Amino acid sequence: MKQVIVVRSDLKMGKGKIAAQAAHASLSAAEMAQRKPAWYEVWKEEGQAKVVLRTQSEAELRELFQRAKRAGLPAALVEDRGLTQVEPGTVTCLGIGPGPDGEIDAITGNLRLL
Amino acid sequence: MKQVIVVRSDLKMGKGKIAAQAAHASLSAAEMAQRKPAWYEVWKEEGQAKVVLRTQSEAELRELFQRAKRAGLPAALVEDRGLTQVEPGTVTCLGIGPGPDGEIDAITGNLRLL
Repeated sequence: MKQVIVVRSDLKMGKGKIAAQAAHASLSAAEMAQRKPAWYEVWKEEGQAKVVLRTQSEAELRELFQRAKRAGLPAALVEDRGLTQVEPGTVTCLGIGPGPDGEIDAITGNLRLL
Repeated sequence: MKQVIVVRSDLKMGKGKIAAQAAHASLSAAEMAQRKPAWYEVWKEEGQAKVVLRTQSEAELRELFQRAKRAGLPAALVEDRGLTQVEPGTVTCLGIGPGPDGEIDAITGNLRLL
């Protein structure tokens, strides 16, 4: 079990901003996963593994979101309020899982680490 | 209501590593806060504000953790398994809250943004 967080690398976000957005994605997707306790509890027990990946476009981020949802995985797209560093409504990152490694890799396996 | 994540800036962590550690701290502290629904629900409704700050030492991070606990705030210290970038058992960051702004500022108000 793992959770993947995909961050847009085409935005000019500093590391603190990225950390806050990633935490937002992680928490929102994890809350969805709490409805699948078999995944959520195992993930927590295994140490709540998280992998942070990157994409260079909003279009790809949205496509990954749709694919994760169709696959039945917990998936949360983060839209920033735009108080700092980005415009209001900017989609910054995506949390997928926790879920089985193989199911998540089928969607994000070709992405690079942030 | 807000949540603060304090990250050690004296470790050589890349931005992806920082994001994963911060998400870990955020989720762990948020889970504690779920036992205080009055704080947790308001925070979620307000947009789950998160602020990422930095400290330069493990000693200060541990002191902030103790002060947050004594103040009755949700507080989670993250110890990394050390598979990448840091030694096993390294304490990397701290999540405090969600909780009332004033109570959290009393502990972290003098820290700088990451």
